[in-house]
Amino acid sequence: MELMEQKIREEGKVLPGGILKVGSFLNQQIDTGFLAQVGAEIARLFQGAGVSKVLTIESSGIAIGAAAGMALGVPLVFAKKHKTSNVDGNTYSTLVHSYTHNTDYTVVVSSDYLLPSDHVLLVDDFLANGKALVGLIDLVSQAGAELVGAACAIEKGFQGGGDALREKGIRVESLAIIDEMSDTGITFREGK
Amino acid sequence: MELMEQKIREEGKVLPGGILKVGSFLNQQIDTGFLAQVGAEIARLFQGAGVSKVLTIESSGIAIGAAAGMALGVPLVFAKKHKTSNVDGNTYSTLVHSYTHNTDYTVVVSSDYLLPSDHVLLVDDFLANGKALVGLIDLVSQAGAELVGAACAIEKGFQGGGDALREKGIRVESLAIIDEMSDTGITFREGK
Repeated sequence: MELMEQKIREEGKVLPGGILKVGSFLNQQIDTGFLAQVGAEIARLFQGAGVSKVLTIESSGIAIGAAAGMALGVPLVFAKKHKTSNVDGNTYSTLVHSYTHNTDYTVVVSSDYLLPSDHVLLVDDFLANGKALVGLIDLVSQAGAELVGAACAIEKGFQGGGDALREKGIRVESLAIIDEMSDTGITFREGK
Repeated sequence: MELMEQKIREEGKVLPGGILKVGSFLNQQIDTGFLAQVGAEIARLFQGAGVSKVLTIESSGIAIGAAAGMALGVPLVFAKKHKTSNVDGNTYSTLVHSYTHNTDYTVVVSSDYLLPSDHVLLVDDFLANGKALVGLIDLVSQAGAELVGAACAIEKGFQGGGDALREKGIRVESLAIIDEMSDTGITFREGK
């Protein structure tokens, strides 16, 4: 998606430790007109794939997941990072390692909202080592639902998580893939 | 908003401890068609009020904030619940008490995204004792921005937070106000 690369070039900031800050348009502050275009692009990529539900993890995936769900005309479900008092009944849960925060956390979703009949599209803002997606795939598997694929706004191709999932036969679509990144520049993978 | 009351009546569940569970359509699982209507209704209420930015708190406010921002054509900013490694530079922060989780947490927003020139509409899913809104109002005040008002999906009128803010002269619009709630039924405030 040309517009995603342009936004990253113009507004993204490369921070020490391999962090790309896109807080001015994608998280923290969200350009809602751009967000709607991101949702429409994800819907275009997965049109006709039979998606019945979008699944993401709180919190930075929620806005993109909502935009994708609106554009696809299907509900969004977001997995929570720890059990709270307003998740009752049976849940599916899995352990995820956060690269950004260098910590493990439990991801939980109510079994009421992920059904064996669902065809699930995973949506997230970043795809780096892929641990978050692997966790969501585990939740989909626990529910006995079908995984349609995954859509991410920005993939850090140099961390390999996206390609590892593709090698397993999972359809992973990222709107921009960064193959190299430093404070002197960003190289995007061709043809995205 | 008649549709909000209808969704609460049909899908809401009253849990012990004054908790209303709306996980099937408003948080956890989000009915994205309904979400777009909620955003449009908030935009209708605040049309012409000069809103330049929507401000919410992660994570259950993000989807509604994004829908409202899309409908108003302005950016969404979400305050984070604790400082993370990808919020750099100067921040505004304030302490908020969570009724649902019975704990205090720090809410942080980057000063890059809340400017003295901003006219801010606060958006959240629930308004109960109003502590989250008071925290957001403090962030707006720290930024020297102007507060336009607050829009909430569901107000628990019996907890008094919304009316206390209205008595201070703040414009608070809730799409449904619950004046009484028990496992035998829900009474909505007239005229909302």
